[in-house]
Amino acid sequence: MKILSEKFIYGGDYNPEQWLDEEGILEEDIRLMKLAHINCVTLGVFSWSSLEPKEGQYQLDWLEDVICRLYENGISTILATPSGARPKWMTNKYPEVLRTTEDRRKNLYGGRHNHCFTSPVYREKVAKINTQLANRFKDNPAVILWHISNEFGGECHCPLCQKAFQTWLKEKYKTPENMNHAWWSKFWSHTYEDFSDVESPSSIGETGLHGLLLDWKRFTSDQTIDYMKWEIHALRMAGAKQPVTTNFMYNIPEANYTKMAKEVDIVSWDTYPTWHKYEGSDIEVAQDNGMQHDFMRSLLHKPYLLMESCPSSTNWQSVSKLKKPGLLHAQSMQALAHGSDSVQYFQIRQSRGSSEKFHGAVIDHYGKEDTRVFREVRKIGEDLESLSEMVCGTTTKATAAILYDVESRWAMEEAQGPRNQGMYYKESVLKNYKALKRMGLDVDVLDCDGDLSGYEIVVAPMLYMLRSNIEEKLKDYVENGGILLGSYFSGVVDENDLCFLGETPYGLCQVFGFRREEIDGLYDWEEKEFLPVKGNSLGLENIYHCSHLFELEKIKTAEPLMTVKGDFYDGYPAVTKNAYGKGWAYCVCGDGEEALYNEVVERIVDSHNLYSPIEGPLEEGLVLTSRESMEHKFFFLQNFSYKEKTAPKELEGRLIYGDLKPFGTAIYEITKLKTL
Amino acid sequence: MKILSEKFIYGGDYNPEQWLDEEGILEEDIRLMKLAHINCVTLGVFSWSSLEPKEGQYQLDWLEDVICRLYENGISTILATPSGARPKWMTNKYPEVLRTTEDRRKNLYGGRHNHCFTSPVYREKVAKINTQLANRFKDNPAVILWHISNEFGGECHCPLCQKAFQTWLKEKYKTPENMNHAWWSKFWSHTYEDFSDVESPSSIGETGLHGLLLDWKRFTSDQTIDYMKWEIHALRMAGAKQPVTTNFMYNIPEANYTKMAKEVDIVSWDTYPTWHKYEGSDIEVAQDNGMQHDFMRSLLHKPYLLMESCPSSTNWQSVSKLKKPGLLHAQSMQALAHGSDSVQYFQIRQSRGSSEKFHGAVIDHYGKEDTRVFREVRKIGEDLESLSEMVCGTTTKATAAILYDVESRWAMEEAQGPRNQGMYYKESVLKNYKALKRMGLDVDVLDCDGDLSGYEIVVAPMLYMLRSNIEEKLKDYVENGGILLGSYFSGVVDENDLCFLGETPYGLCQVFGFRREEIDGLYDWEEKEFLPVKGNSLGLENIYHCSHLFELEKIKTAEPLMTVKGDFYDGYPAVTKNAYGKGWAYCVCGDGEEALYNEVVERIVDSHNLYSPIEGPLEEGLVLTSRESMEHKFFFLQNFSYKEKTAPKELEGRLIYGDLKPFGTAIYEITKLKTL
Amino acid sequence: MKILSEKFIYGGDYNPEQWLDEEGILEEDIRLMKLAHINCVTLGVFSWSSLEPKEGQYQLDWLEDVICRLYENGISTILATPSGARPKWMTNKYPEVLRTTEDRRKNLYGGRHNHCFTSPVYREKVAKINTQLANRFKDNPAVILWHISNEFGGECHCPLCQKAFQTWLKEKYKTPENMNHAWWSKFWSHTYEDFSDVESPSSIGETGLHGLLLDWKRFTSDQTIDYMKWEIHALRMAGAKQPVTTNFMYNIPEANYTKMAKEVDIVSWDTYPTWHKYEGSDIEVAQDNGMQHDFMRSLLHKPYLLMESCPSSTNWQSVSKLKKPGLLHAQSMQALAHGSDSVQYFQIRQSRGSSEKFHGAVIDHYGKEDTRVFREVRKIGEDLESLSEMVCGTTTKATAAILYDVESRWAMEEAQGPRNQGMYYKESVLKNYKALKRMGLDVDVLDCDGDLSGYEIVVAPMLYMLRSNIEEKLKDYVENGGILLGSYFSGVVDENDLCFLGETPYGLCQVFGFRREEIDGLYDWEEKEFLPVKGNSLGLENIYHCSHLFELEKIKTAEPLMTVKGDFYDGYPAVTKNAYGKGWAYCVCGDGEEALYNEVVERIVDSHNLYSPIEGPLEEGLVLTSRESMEHKFFFLQNFSYKEKTAPKELEGRLIYGDLKPFGTAIYEITKLKTL
Repeated sequence: MKILSEKFIYGGDYNPEQWLDEEGILEEDIRLMKLAHINCVTLGVFSWSSLEPKEGQYQLDWLEDVICRLYENGISTILATPSGARPKWMTNKYPEVLRTTEDRRKNLYGGRHNHCFTSPVYREKVAKINTQLANRFKDNPAVILWHISNEFGGECHCPLCQKAFQTWLKEKYKTPENMNHAWWSKFWSHTYEDFSDVESPSSIGETGLHGLLLDWKRFTSDQTIDYMKWEIHALRMAGAKQPVTTNFMYNIPEANYTKMAKEVDIVSWDTYPTWHKYEGSDIEVAQDNGMQHDFMRSLLHKPYLLMESCPSSTNWQSVSKLKKPGLLHAQSMQALAHGSDSVQYFQIRQSRGSSEKFHGAVIDHYGKEDTRVFREVRKIGEDLESLSEMVCGTTTKATAAILYDVESRWAMEEAQGPRNQGMYYKESVLKNYKALKRMGLDVDVLDCDGDLSGYEIVVAPMLYMLRSNIEEKLKDYVENGGILLGSYFSGVVDENDLCFLGETPYGLCQVFGFRREEIDGLYDWEEKEFLPVKGNSLGLENIYHCSHLFELEKIKTAEPLMTVKGDFYDGYPAVTKNAYGKGWAYCVCGDGEEALYNEVVERIVDSHNLYSPIEGPLEEGLVLTSRESMEHKFFFLQNFSYKEKTAPKELEGRLIYGDLKPFGTAIYEITKLKTL
Repeated sequence: MKILSEKFIYGGDYNPEQWLDEEGILEEDIRLMKLAHINCVTLGVFSWSSLEPKEGQYQLDWLEDVICRLYENGISTILATPSGARPKWMTNKYPEVLRTTEDRRKNLYGGRHNHCFTSPVYREKVAKINTQLANRFKDNPAVILWHISNEFGGECHCPLCQKAFQTWLKEKYKTPENMNHAWWSKFWSHTYEDFSDVESPSSIGETGLHGLLLDWKRFTSDQTIDYMKWEIHALRMAGAKQPVTTNFMYNIPEANYTKMAKEVDIVSWDTYPTWHKYEGSDIEVAQDNGMQHDFMRSLLHKPYLLMESCPSSTNWQSVSKLKKPGLLHAQSMQALAHGSDSVQYFQIRQSRGSSEKFHGAVIDHYGKEDTRVFREVRKIGEDLESLSEMVCGTTTKATAAILYDVESRWAMEEAQGPRNQGMYYKESVLKNYKALKRMGLDVDVLDCDGDLSGYEIVVAPMLYMLRSNIEEKLKDYVENGGILLGSYFSGVVDENDLCFLGETPYGLCQVFGFRREEIDGLYDWEEKEFLPVKGNSLGLENIYHCSHLFELEKIKTAEPLMTVKGDFYDGYPAVTKNAYGKGWAYCVCGDGEEALYNEVVERIVDSHNLYSPIEGPLEEGLVLTSRESMEHKFFFLQNFSYKEKTAPKELEGRLIYGDLKPFGTAIYEITKLKTL
Repeated sequence: MKILSEKFIYGGDYNPEQWLDEEGILEEDIRLMKLAHINCVTLGVFSWSSLEPKEGQYQLDWLEDVICRLYENGISTILATPSGARPKWMTNKYPEVLRTTEDRRKNLYGGRHNHCFTSPVYREKVAKINTQLANRFKDNPAVILWHISNEFGGECHCPLCQKAFQTWLKEKYKTPENMNHAWWSKFWSHTYEDFSDVESPSSIGETGLHGLLLDWKRFTSDQTIDYMKWEIHALRMAGAKQPVTTNFMYNIPEANYTKMAKEVDIVSWDTYPTWHKYEGSDIEVAQDNGMQHDFMRSLLHKPYLLMESCPSSTNWQSVSKLKKPGLLHAQSMQALAHGSDSVQYFQIRQSRGSSEKFHGAVIDHYGKEDTRVFREVRKIGEDLESLSEMVCGTTTKATAAILYDVESRWAMEEAQGPRNQGMYYKESVLKNYKALKRMGLDVDVLDCDGDLSGYEIVVAPMLYMLRSNIEEKLKDYVENGGILLGSYFSGVVDENDLCFLGETPYGLCQVFGFRREEIDGLYDWEEKEFLPVKGNSLGLENIYHCSHLFELEKIKTAEPLMTVKGDFYDGYPAVTKNAYGKGWAYCVCGDGEEALYNEVVERIVDSHNLYSPIEGPLEEGLVLTSRESMEHKFFFLQNFSYKEKTAPKELEGRLIYGDLKPFGTAIYEITKLKTL
């Protein structure tokens, strides 16, 4: 399944409009791009003032000229709509397009993502420029993909948005009574008589009505998606038929990407990991980044694009750290390893001035090819070219799924209690993820809307909020033979953050074989110990620390595999196992250290004979992923340590690319009819 | 002296209006309350939107119904006026009722204590709803106490408040000249021509005119009290005759409680200590909490009420820590031990949603009696019932007083110098308090308005500001044979924060026998040593550390008991003693460690033969208090450590209740005619 | 060259208007001043409301009376214009005079430096009061100097300032196109069509357009200077002929002092070091303070004034630390040692109230002469009197210059990358400065506008921004035989913060003999080692640590004297040397520790036979400076340690004053015809 092109896309953001007045820059850039095997650039991001310097006066000739000259040189274009930033004339004439802060201050002109997604004027202006672009480039073979705006995010509290929020609420709740009940607004006399009473959360207004806070985040996400659809619609109305994407961001900042992904043809994202942050941190960063890659791939379950990455150091992180030799290669190959069909950079040519003038680029201020960065970029270009035919378009088939639900995260972030100085949800998901990856499993990252069928194991850490009937899906999954690994602080609230009454984890007490009694917040200095129960049926053997949170479960049918030591709940279950239907449900009852998850997952994989391409855990520092076509399966083994590694014996003799030196990537090929 | 009822009040906040739509909740709650020996609930806190859902449309039937049904089941009601939060309709129609921030931004609707105490509209609306409540419940025997609003605090900078502030100033100073002199406003050309020139302090305006800052705090306190009186007046005008209270808060956040207490019939307060914060911290927390209890009792010198406490973990502290078994019992008994005639919780039934949904409750989301918390609550209920007849209504007669003056604290907080990164006033008071408690003394906590007569010892740490003629009162007190223990940074400013000229501590140089020369701020890394003077007349023997501040005193008549070591003031007095009239004045000249105060106070108690029920200091972890009636005296001995303790021999054989196991409370009875 | 008077000025700020109503204060103050040998006071700072209590009603009699009574007692007056704070009536009638914050909020009345320098009303009012003062005092022999306003700083974003900024930009750039190019504003579509489009930077608007940010700082500085010139003009128009000064501040907060100094007759400044901050910190503080003194002296290359210093502890630092005995003397002598012709205090008499009531003073609240501080003040007065004839008016002739450019600092502060958590520019300059001082050199502190001719060595650390043709000046300087010591992150941007394209450090690659390849930001935990190259021609021998930043240089003609160890750039040059023309250019390639600079500078001084009055480095804790007249040269040797020191042998036998005890100052005299 080739999503876009026959070969890996290689390129990045390019802003030639900054250099049109300078002689020879474009020619030189083309020469250098070709030297680096770059076959595609992203144009038009933030180019509005060059495309429409005065209201209604469009200047697209320079853009067409650049696109054509690039295309003549074998370089395609991903064309961005320019709405990530707006020209000054627009805010002069229509101040409404600027955002209003949460404390109700109208922003001034400045920055980039500083526009209201509700504003009819902004939408009109965007539709017009998009129409111009579509009219001009809909049939241009050089333009292979539309890139909608840039890194959607942020929120606006202007009167237009207030009104849109009220309408959104009315659609959701139908009556104020329903809303009042869902928000439990009788607490502190917050009852609303009418939807028009509702104001968005504000530090000078409402900060504690959890249902309101959560719905505001949902509205913001929905309004962002609605705006994006408006942009796409304008392109389509003007006849553009190329696929569309938008560039997602690390850690899902402010939108429900599951919903957003439904509206684009291809998922793409921007990755900016902070490599080399401390000794031995690269494997940590790689796992975190890998989980993000898996999340992006899981959104549409097909190849996606790495839209932005930095070829050198960024300028906006606290320390602008140079990538050590080989790291850029590893970072680029990691995208491929997890299912991307591209490697793209921000940026091709470094800006001379303004806020990102020190952000790394393929062509830096020095401007020539005899730089370390350029040599590495060129080597990656060569490798992508050589791998394209075999690997491009292949997909990943994961046997494990992990739930990471952004709406549940929003709710946990706003909730007060049980630990306001840190719940560590993301960290908990990551610990589970790493335990799965350590066993060599491919992992899909889903949210509560996900389809659980077909996975051998589903991991659901801290499933605080239940929505989309997830408790039923999990129950059915286990009932029919699935393996579930859950944890503390699950099944606490419904989709409006309203606490379940009666036994909890709601809907899952039978599955897990216990009910929650209490949950204890631990101070930062506090640690509890988890001790294995002698003769426990999973064969757990070691002692682990637990921090932050420990939940007291009242056992009904579950088997305690480990118990907690010390404090008044000494002997309470720490890890449990319960048979339910044809399957099994495990639960970790406190925020255990990473090694706990490693042992638990390893024992589960062994005990239930779950599929893994390798026997026993991977060596520390290595990450294994796979992609496959109808005929072939490719294993990517990456070394994110400073020491050379050896491959597991199962992969011996199948190397088709690379090595396992520090930051090395090795690719192994398996003909699919053989079992590994 | 029974303040309210023949027996201890046991209960807490209850918000049935959140559950009126749910079948059977009230019945179940009554069943559980009776099971827990609960005899009283607080209704109506934050219930305005249920009582007056639309302007002028009052709905009190549900409330009367609940009150009556509770009463039929033996449960009385403390009825709150609902003004702690306001309905949305009010702010829609009368935005003036919302507060204005110090940087002059009008708040939006939201939160709870978000109303202007000056607003005529708010006062009118409050008077009307209070009148409705009084009309309905003034003769209802179920309603035993009015609870005015909730946890008064905060400030408003709206134009109405500005005007009220100017009027307040005019009343205080009569002429602008007087005010200008008091504020020393020629500094930086801040002279005011007229009272109408004055604006409240603001981060975008005046931040450094100490007299203004201090008067603003006083005005805010006075205006809050004036508002509270308005509420009470409305109840009284409508014929309500029950006593009134309002719930005070930990550490006197923003009002002069001495003044406020004069306007209520009964003092009550809300306690939320952070137990188990670190290893061994519980005794620290207990002492701090005990000092608050003593402060509340000292306000009206009679039994008071514990109005709110949490039966489990709160949700708004940084970590929601579960109370270890027994701690809730100890916390509840501590109230009794210091003179409370009640134990009450926030809350009876846990809210399902909104900002406090994870705040602990007698009845939690699970909803049944088989919880650890419910079992502890029930046990406390049983114990209160059994102790009521003997203990309820008895009072505490302290022989020691400590001064903790909130107006002086305000002034110190705003003053710049001598240590802007921490003056540690409260901490200093607490160290002195603990030294007194260690000797088994009952302690009253007073401010500068306090009456010092009758105490054997008065402790006055860091008496920065002198007001209410306190220097004369202290002088007279010592002159007539009293024992005074003072410290550095005393007698610095007058009641308007204007520095005294000439010798200081103002008015007290003769009493202490020295004058202040300079005061040195110590960096956090700095420590000085206090060495005992050989053969000093108090018998001090040990060496102690001093931090934060050290004051250089020029000795006139005092005896240096200790001297400081090192730095250029090597040999300067560190602890002094001075005979004055028939009494003695001691002074600690720097911020010594806790053990210093312990030794000083122990030697003073011994040397002057001060009354103590026990010989020698109490064992670490124990707290001793007493209550007495005409005939009996009860000693409460509480163990806030994890180890079982034994009682001092003086109490042997007199145990009438409890034990000294970890978190245990033992009560001893003495027939008063005997001397102990 | 006597700048103002035949003898050292000794005195400080005095605000008798605060005490006019109090009997006898002035007489007592005069008595005490005479006792302390005070010969001059600064009057009128912040006195506006006493001079013009109502609009247009001037009251100068009290001031004249005070001036005359002081003068009769031998005390001259430095007379301040009162514009550092404004009367309340002015803001009542003309709110425009108050500042607007960066987020566009109009300030309220309050504070002191809270007025708009653009406001025509403020300028008019200032001109009128200044005219009144000049009319009254222009011929009064008591008034020897005008002190313009107070500690200029801060910024205003009101509409008047916006317009003035736009006009300033138009004057600078002529066309929007030029401005757009200089700001590289096509980045993020920030193109301006017209100057009237530009708004000042704001946290609710533009924060990242570096050229705009930098120009705003320049405009603010220029507007401040323009305002100051307006004040001076008013005095001159009214016939005042006395010289003018204004008091500069530590570390050049917000103005280009090089430009500002051009507009005054005499430079003066206020010093408030944080002595005794940690063990052994005093020498550090003294060096930092000494560099500031050298900076102030270098502005006009003649004697200057120490306008304010604290005789005791300040009240606004985090800890109000008492000065240890002798420190005040050392601090005062340090001013003389670096070229000041005065020692002055804030303040003569301590304020009774308001924000600085705890700021140290010659006469404190106690009010008498039997205080430690007064005795020290008096001793200094005696010493100044005895030294005046010989030393007053002598000047410093430095052979070394160091560049510290405030505009480059502004640009680095706003730039994003390469290390947003700390670039350490000032610290780097100071390390170089201390290495020069360690060798006994007198040092001028210049910026890019400085004249480099005549120095034996020029040190230019982190010369990020090139302006005023500094790269050409440096090139010429070295070409003609000068010794240059530069460092990493130099020659990066032009005067508008636009990156140079091609080889960098721009204009200096030939001088240094390399070009920059990359720059690596180091995390706080990261350190690199610098190793000496065997047989390097400078004789460097030791190993040093490098933090924060390391720059990779590609050597062309330079000799690597040291190389870096570890990381992927192992072996890259760490310290370089290059012959250029008749001179030599050295470069340090990373943020080395202090000792590295010490060795490098010591070897350079030795190797090139640079002038130093002493052989070998000074002992730790000592600082050496000199002043000279036509006939004599005076060496000031100060001991900022807690141990007595001995003078270098070259100074033996020439002592004319003092000693080298802790905090001691020794003065040595050399008849100039002799070589030392």
